[in-house]
Amino acid sequence: MSSQTTGGGPGDAALEAVVARVVARIQKELQVAAVPPGPTLRGSWNDQTAMRLDTLVGAGADRVGTDGRVSDQTARLARYIDHTLLKPTATRAQIVKVCEEARVHGFASVCVNSTWIGLVARLLEGCRTLPICVVGFPLGAMSTPGKVAETHEAIVEGAEEIDMVINVGRLKSGEWDAVYDDVRAVVEAARGKPVKVILETAMLDRREKVAGSAISKAAGAAFVKTSTGFGGGGATAEDVALMRAVVGPDLGVKASGGVRSAADAHAMIAAGADRLGASASVAIVTGGTGKGAY
Amino acid sequence: MSSQTTGGGPGDAALEAVVARVVARIQKELQVAAVPPGPTLRGSWNDQTAMRLDTLVGAGADRVGTDGRVSDQTARLARYIDHTLLKPTATRAQIVKVCEEARVHGFASVCVNSTWIGLVARLLEGCRTLPICVVGFPLGAMSTPGKVAETHEAIVEGAEEIDMVINVGRLKSGEWDAVYDDVRAVVEAARGKPVKVILETAMLDRREKVAGSAISKAAGAAFVKTSTGFGGGGATAEDVALMRAVVGPDLGVKASGGVRSAADAHAMIAAGADRLGASASVAIVTGGTGKGAY
Repeated sequence: MSSQTTGGGPGDAALEAVVARVVARIQKELQVAAVPPGPTLRGSWNDQTAMRLDTLVGAGADRVGTDGRVSDQTARLARYIDHTLLKPTATRAQIVKVCEEARVHGFASVCVNSTWIGLVARLLEGCRTLPICVVGFPLGAMSTPGKVAETHEAIVEGAEEIDMVINVGRLKSGEWDAVYDDVRAVVEAARGKPVKVILETAMLDRREKVAGSAISKAAGAAFVKTSTGFGGGGATAEDVALMRAVVGPDLGVKASGGVRSAADAHAMIAAGADRLGASASVAIVTGGTGKGAY
Repeated sequence: MSSQTTGGGPGDAALEAVVARVVARIQKELQVAAVPPGPTLRGSWNDQTAMRLDTLVGAGADRVGTDGRVSDQTARLARYIDHTLLKPTATRAQIVKVCEEARVHGFASVCVNSTWIGLVARLLEGCRTLPICVVGFPLGAMSTPGKVAETHEAIVEGAEEIDMVINVGRLKSGEWDAVYDDVRAVVEAARGKPVKVILETAMLDRREKVAGSAISKAAGAAFVKTSTGFGGGGATAEDVALMRAVVGPDLGVKASGGVRSAADAHAMIAAGADRLGASASVAIVTGGTGKGAY
């Protein structure tokens, strides 16, 4: 599929072993279905860190208290939130407004489609809020060269993070090698900028969620992320905990889709998320409840 | 946005005039809202053919009779149909099945996401059914370089037609120049293979539908197409007639989204469509009714 893939290497056997043990552990602890052996998984993965499962499920539960002092806590949520506008109908004026909101509230980033990333990067100059961009969005069924080019252009235009969609169809076809190559090619095109891999969990069974998370980590992703907001389902605490268990503490887990209130946000963080994607970000940090799927 | 754009030229003024007259004519005949003058429309457009509006609305109504002999007619519908599988969860096995169905029934094409176009091209070798591929799908909000690379790769892999999604957000922002450049860049990347431009009509008002159709024609598209099937609405006879009125007889009009039965197909053809996109293609040509949004 891609000309920017890495070959198999000495990490293969170790990775296989890690995946097998992670799956066995999760199966035992969470009573999920087993993941069959991944015949083609490749890459390097720190075996030790990935196995510290006992510290992972529920990690972060103490990062944000729930003592009822809503105003302090909600304001503090802003640094977790990727303020997101991905509707195809979004206009320039709406993109500008989202960037202004991000400056005011101190959101972690503004997340947009790639047609707008250059504009967002310019609008956020001199601001701690990062311009970030989706790739292969929302189906993930774009060819790898398409994703690579979209990533390359986004980085040139100023994207500081890339949120790509995993190739769901290849994942469901058991073509783990193609899924790995796809993620790996985008990671390489991002030239050191963090890549989040959206699994679109609502479309996956547990086996596929585990495999997608493990492959993403092996391929060099910085985060795994639950949902696009376009796939008919959003983040659940159960999925966040599962993904956190698989990727370990070294990767981020982003909960997105259906995060509409401070309560939603706290629930996701308690389950192990350290980033949240939301379009209702302003409502979340001001104690309200937003609308919409994302 | 793109490095593959064409400059303004002698066609500008003529094109502006055509757009103005088409809009005036449509406004009068169909009582739609006026389209504001397009300050940046460029390209070449045959003024004369575009103005033959009186032959257009309802064109093609006699191509397929409605005399009740369903079996003959429904079989004949196959050559109008792009047999389509665009779900992100589609597996290799489902892609193979769609290609087999297309061979059996003689569909015009098989339409898939770009990750699968190489496979489809190989499966359809030696068959009249064409392998075709979507680009920037389904949001249309991908950067132009991303769409260009996806198109280039698809052509290399064997795509015989490209179904791209227009940049809906730029269209709604009145950035007609950017919309034109985006379509034009894909047309050039397709190297002579026909490009269809999906307007996603359910998200557009009449003014935007007319502008999107006119810009697509000016930029060298071979077809305008109604819908992705992912945008919350599908083809309507009214939209097909409007698009046909704007683009004239030289371009194709593809009705897609919600075409699920032979009756749906005949209605679209009667309204001016000369291609249909459907996932329920087998049901359509065998007298049944399909499910799903596309």
